[in-house]
Amino acid sequence: MVVKVHGPAFAPATRRVLACLIEKGIDYEIVHVDTLNGANKDPKFLKLQPFGVVPVIEDGDFTLYESRAILRYYAEKYKSEGTELLGKTVEERGLVEQWLEVEGQNYHPSIYNLLVHLKFFPKMGVPVDMKLVEESEEKLAKVLDIYEERLSKSKYLAGDFFSLADLSHLPATEYLVNDIGKDYMIRDRKHVSAWWDDISSRPSWKKVLQL
Amino acid sequence: MVVKVHGPAFAPATRRVLACLIEKGIDYEIVHVDTLNGANKDPKFLKLQPFGVVPVIEDGDFTLYESRAILRYYAEKYKSEGTELLGKTVEERGLVEQWLEVEGQNYHPSIYNLLVHLKFFPKMGVPVDMKLVEESEEKLAKVLDIYEERLSKSKYLAGDFFSLADLSHLPATEYLVNDIGKDYMIRDRKHVSAWWDDISSRPSWKKVLQL
Repeated sequence: MVVKVHGPAFAPATRRVLACLIEKGIDYEIVHVDTLNGANKDPKFLKLQPFGVVPVIEDGDFTLYESRAILRYYAEKYKSEGTELLGKTVEERGLVEQWLEVEGQNYHPSIYNLLVHLKFFPKMGVPVDMKLVEESEEKLAKVLDIYEERLSKSKYLAGDFFSLADLSHLPATEYLVNDIGKDYMIRDRKHVSAWWDDISSRPSWKKVLQL
Repeated sequence: MVVKVHGPAFAPATRRVLACLIEKGIDYEIVHVDTLNGANKDPKFLKLQPFGVVPVIEDGDFTLYESRAILRYYAEKYKSEGTELLGKTVEERGLVEQWLEVEGQNYHPSIYNLLVHLKFFPKMGVPVDMKLVEESEEKLAKVLDIYEERLSKSKYLAGDFFSLADLSHLPATEYLVNDIGKDYMIRDRKHVSAWWDDISSRPSWKKVLQL
């Protein structure tokens, strides 16, 4: 069964799902959603995803949205295929869940603000809120200091194994490092920098960037 | 092993964890953290939880934070004890994860804004941002319209079974309905209202409110 992934391939949340499918060796097909022209608010799309945000997957009769829920679903459903992404014990999985939540609640929102205000608003002619940009960078710096401490003790966020927790950081960090000129935030922190080099050089992520 | 739950018993995220432990029949002990006086920023607490937010659990040598990660950990670890909270199939669990993410990303943040500005800021003499209050209420109303549609088709969010997805909504909704005068947002929606009556009358939740 080929998994249909609805969403533009450049959207961070779509990329998160694609990286997971590739790590697990699952066949997929991207169904482009033209979010730049509001196709995510069309009634047809809203029937699949009532909140009007990408991505959403269709797997036969089964429909699922929220990118981090989709990650967990495929990591669990195909536990023994491809890369193990949830850890081996219930404690390891607990830590994967902890860092997935940190990513969703603390890490992603700050980078999202930077991305919107430094990349998209200038293109759209919308005024940039420099106070919000500064606050977001300050918040992110504090979060990254905690990551630096954590990654000085274990190779990956949840332990000495690559997991969904790391994978989920790929899309936002890619934009931070290679698109909005904030690479120093990663590079100034030795362990975070080594971790980024490691996870971003995975073949799955290189493939996502080519899509 | 008695689980130590660090956090004030009134904090929404602590209550979320306590409701789960009670549903699973797990022994716990609350270690009060005086967040109103900044004890969550003390070095001792930061060693347990570097972000300085409650709750964090200690279970023997194992430490875990992020309330929704703690929910998943106990629901998985004691799967066959107490209430089954993750669904029976991998698809059911996928939907539990989807609605847990919706709660964390879409539902909780709006209510949190309302709570801070309508309950805490007035007490602290901090000016209330009425524009943010209005925007948060508008956002929440749209989210609740989607819940109304969903709950017209299934008794609970993830399907016809009570799960972590519903449980995770208890703390914020309790404040919305019984503390900041926004009960009409629930009561004006027939299916959401019936769902709230159902989940808030569970013995676990009643017990949490007495702690």
